Amino acid sequence: MDRLKKQINFILEVDKLKTIFRQSYITDKSRHENDAEHSWHLALMAFLLAEHTNEKVDILKVIKMVLVHDLVEIDAGDTYCYDQKANLGKRDRERKCADRIFHMLPEDQCSEMFELWEEFEKIETPEAKYAAALDRLQPLLLNYTTDGKSWKEHGIHKSQVVERIRTMQKGSEKLWNFAEDIIEDGAQKGFLK
Amino acid sequence: MDRLKKQINFILEVDKLKTIFRQSYITDKSRHENDAEHSWHLALMAFLLAEHTNEKVDILKVIKMVLVHDLVEIDAGDTYCYDQKANLGKRDRERKCADRIFHMLPEDQCSEMFELWEEFEKIETPEAKYAAALDRLQPLLLNYTTDGKSWKEHGIHKSQVVERIRTMQKGSEKLWNFAEDIIEDGAQKGFLK
Repeated sequence: MDRLKKQINFILEVDKLKTIFRQSYITDKSRHENDAEHSWHLALMAFLLAEHTNEKVDILKVIKMVLVHDLVEIDAGDTYCYDQKANLGKRDRERKCADRIFHMLPEDQCSEMFELWEEFEKIETPEAKYAAALDRLQPLLLNYTTDGKSWKEHGIHKSQVVERIRTMQKGSEKLWNFAEDIIEDGAQKGFLK
Repeated sequence: MDRLKKQINFILEVDKLKTIFRQSYITDKSRHENDAEHSWHLALMAFLLAEHTNEKVDILKVIKMVLVHDLVEIDAGDTYCYDQKANLGKRDRERKCADRIFHMLPEDQCSEMFELWEEFEKIETPEAKYAAALDRLQPLLLNYTTDGKSWKEHGIHKSQVVERIRTMQKGSEKLWNFAEDIIEDGAQKGFLK
């Protein structure tokens, strides 16, 4: 019963992910998206777009990775990818949060959480490369569909977005090509500088 | 490229799940939870609690099921489980939504969506029984943790909750026993009538 209680406490603790907001707007433009919604969207995309990966991937592992990849933001907060100053110390803040929340779980599951999160962060395995591609594509889709609302608010340049999402290439050439077209079109429509 | 475009259109369409609100409150009591957040929470729980199922389950299938189980509420809306009147015609409304959105996908993926949703609804396979158990447990945890806020607002009786979540037994005796204890404690604390 002790294992179950630890698991339930963790499950309730990570409910806080629903209160961590990102810079992207949801498609109806009414508000920013939160991390829990973002993670759900990535998990769904993971299995719908699996045919487009460069290499064969273990989809269950990819889904687990995207479901947990932002849990470390519960204490650390979401750091806007284009805010260089805010990104200083990001790794340390996130590591501290990982230490606090992953250790709420039984030992074996705590280890699995660290492994999933670290694998995701390194972008080295086929699964992590694909997860990273999804994590770049999803906000791109939202930003494009909301007429660049968030990009415009922050005065984002096309080159910054290209630089940011280039890593998609490692996970999926096909999704990267698709993303390039969207960026080009977004720039022509004035969504990006 | 046509397949990818269909997939992307679907992915953007289902963003609307983030605007469908449920009766449960998130743990900080600040607002109701939406379907996308709920689905993320279930998917995470699916792999964290997998050791407690009655029968061996295919976890990837369970996760896919819970990620898509509420998509039919995009047009149909969330129907409060304790509102008998609102539940009339629920199946028809949801079927109509499934027909509209699942057919946005390529044929094979459209079929997979229907299969996952129908399997979930029938609660017959080990995967569907476990998914149903999670779908009952998660709002129970939220309602209990928020001091029965939603239960009190709707004047819910203990017997209604027991009746509603009894199906958990089919998926996990262990989680069902845990849930029974929570309900008992909630009733004693006055969260339930």
